[in-house]
Amino acid sequence: MNQSAVENSDVKVAVRQVCAQAQVGQKWLAQANTASRNELLESIAQRLLLEAERIEAANRIDLERERAAGMSEGLLDRLRLDYSRIEDLAAAVRTLVDLPDPVGRVIDGQQLPNGLRVRRQRVPLGVVGMIYEARPNVTVDAACLALKAGNAVILRGGSAAAESNAALVEVMRTALAERGCPPQVVASVDAWGREGARQLMRARGYIDVLVPRGGGGLISAVVEESTVPVIETGVGNCHIYVDASADLTQALEIVMNAKTQRVGVCNAVETVLVDESIAPDFLPVLESALGAAGVRIHPSAQAAKELQNHWPLAGEDDWAGEYLSMDLALATTAGVEGAIEHIERYSSGHTEAVLATDTRVINDFVRRVDAAAVAVNASTRFTDGGQLGLGAELGISTQKLHARGPMGLEQLTTWKWIIEGDGHVRA
Amino acid sequence: MNQSAVENSDVKVAVRQVCAQAQVGQKWLAQANTASRNELLESIAQRLLLEAERIEAANRIDLERERAAGMSEGLLDRLRLDYSRIEDLAAAVRTLVDLPDPVGRVIDGQQLPNGLRVRRQRVPLGVVGMIYEARPNVTVDAACLALKAGNAVILRGGSAAAESNAALVEVMRTALAERGCPPQVVASVDAWGREGARQLMRARGYIDVLVPRGGGGLISAVVEESTVPVIETGVGNCHIYVDASADLTQALEIVMNAKTQRVGVCNAVETVLVDESIAPDFLPVLESALGAAGVRIHPSAQAAKELQNHWPLAGEDDWAGEYLSMDLALATTAGVEGAIEHIERYSSGHTEAVLATDTRVINDFVRRVDAAAVAVNASTRFTDGGQLGLGAELGISTQKLHARGPMGLEQLTTWKWIIEGDGHVRA
Repeated sequence: MNQSAVENSDVKVAVRQVCAQAQVGQKWLAQANTASRNELLESIAQRLLLEAERIEAANRIDLERERAAGMSEGLLDRLRLDYSRIEDLAAAVRTLVDLPDPVGRVIDGQQLPNGLRVRRQRVPLGVVGMIYEARPNVTVDAACLALKAGNAVILRGGSAAAESNAALVEVMRTALAERGCPPQVVASVDAWGREGARQLMRARGYIDVLVPRGGGGLISAVVEESTVPVIETGVGNCHIYVDASADLTQALEIVMNAKTQRVGVCNAVETVLVDESIAPDFLPVLESALGAAGVRIHPSAQAAKELQNHWPLAGEDDWAGEYLSMDLALATTAGVEGAIEHIERYSSGHTEAVLATDTRVINDFVRRVDAAAVAVNASTRFTDGGQLGLGAELGISTQKLHARGPMGLEQLTTWKWIIEGDGHVRA
Repeated sequence: MNQSAVENSDVKVAVRQVCAQAQVGQKWLAQANTASRNELLESIAQRLLLEAERIEAANRIDLERERAAGMSEGLLDRLRLDYSRIEDLAAAVRTLVDLPDPVGRVIDGQQLPNGLRVRRQRVPLGVVGMIYEARPNVTVDAACLALKAGNAVILRGGSAAAESNAALVEVMRTALAERGCPPQVVASVDAWGREGARQLMRARGYIDVLVPRGGGGLISAVVEESTVPVIETGVGNCHIYVDASADLTQALEIVMNAKTQRVGVCNAVETVLVDESIAPDFLPVLESALGAAGVRIHPSAQAAKELQNHWPLAGEDDWAGEYLSMDLALATTAGVEGAIEHIERYSSGHTEAVLATDTRVINDFVRRVDAAAVAVNASTRFTDGGQLGLGAELGISTQKLHARGPMGLEQLTTWKWIIEGDGHVRA
């Protein structure tokens, strides 16, 4: 065995030990009632404010190191934790207190003909792993969502936020210990770098689910390496189809909102598809609104004919990719049929929107498009746990298993079948 | 690239083509209403009976080859398809017709304060992969469950049942085509042997879920190799704890039922734990009943003291493994606390039973034991889709994500968020 293999084996043991301690601690959470778990969150919110200075100091170390290493202003902004953002974090934790507790809820149940009483009752998943990029707010959001639903959480944040995350985890653990909760239910494997992340992906039997949150590269790597169940989140190549029957004033507002209200998010629109019959009227209006907002258009050859400016034509990468920037691919289609074909080919299964007044078009689109969310005469930006009434979310799942769309508290639970008899045996 | 790599790459292309055709065909199923999908099942039931002779002939080839190769009588029996078993298969398909359709069901929904109408509605998963052992009845059961919920299915059965499975798939495809359904929604990758199975595990983007059904070795291999989401089924190391407060007459009946009503199934009991305070009274009675039924006992040193016969003492393998035979591990524990500790250490998360009349003991056990099913004063054998009122099942999931316990029609669906507005944009 070479030196590196020995080190990897040490990391494996260390990561599994962290997970095993979290498993033991989680038993405390699984027994705690709603009020006790809410007290933990309140305690965390208070501690975040009390220890804001210490968190800011840790964050400054990350910011200075990354600025020196040439991190862009946009990314530095995502990394920054000033007092006002710490206040926001604490407020977000307090909003979780008011959300209904999914644990203990009875999903369904019945008395069977033989007299057996059966029910499915929600219980915590157990230990949730999170792998994410350099956004320290996710450290607190993810941990507190997991705790609310009775889970322990093992975190692996981006190395650029290492000092901030270490401080936040320490603050949360202090808050938990104050209320008698084993602090190891919030833990980090950041100390072991990339190998720590890899061992987390392979900690089968030690963690119950792993949620990668970030770009396509991170998610593919996790899916490829993992032997633990994974819920993919965060990649969105969203489309809006504007039908000939659409209210074009509304359509213009919705496209502008979906593209420009916030870029760099997974529910922003990346491609607009316009029925060819209205292209001559609608595209010039759309072009001037997009242009005024600073959006760069990447048109199909057909769409380009209706535009004033000479934009470089879109290629395969434009249709297939996620810009996450002030760029928009634009194509005309042969009605809703053409739009559905385009979406079937390029959709990442996140959010697809149809703008139309013709119910035949709407029903066809809603039935046939296979995505986590289908929006009708509404912006793609509504696919969000907060917007859809879940209160909070761990991410947006684009897979079909367990969680599809916003992953809220309910998706952080599983169920237990409870079968009650009076000496029942099977015939 | 060597010869074998070239062949693997050919198999990869071939398997992905089968999956892609299933994806296209599944669109037909996703559009079909409940009545149309039920007609497909009726058509399959009829064809199974019409072509019974052909199926039996194919099955005889498998039986003769495997008998010559030394397959045990027990396994040959699982492989056998005579006319009466084909009748049972057809009858099982017809029972699916009467089950409620999960597709289209609205899970929840609301009108949000801003006027957006949102709902979660059940839709098929898409393409379901199944990898299983040499039981040809699973070929029909799995395919028809998947079809009922609007899914295409790609099958990989054990090679010992290759001829039988090929005939069954052909018969089902004929029945589908008769009703205008694209026959490729039921397909097999058996022709490509082990490499076909491996490529199915790696057909990311082509299948939506893979369900391995079989022994621990098969399931571990699938989990290790897969890049597609997996639902594990079929491994059960089930325990029964007999408390001092139990009705011992009932307890004896339940233990006997759970061990001997059918061995070789995942919900049979493998270890019985008895409170040490009642061991002197209960163990001799239990021993004589088990002995009369031909069950071999593997006791702990403590339990052995109360037994008449000299059974070889149980070791780590006895506590950790699944016998699937007329063998039973037996231990005494320090009350429910000791039983929970033993179960936490060795449980496979399938079914755990408590036999007691003391509600404190029952509540403690139900709350703290982490398994798909917890039975109270009932046999472990009830953890079964048919017994629990689901009508049918694809297997028993021991994982926590998506499906826990019996995997019925509902677990063969996902949901789609439908968001309806009137020109809504995000503020």
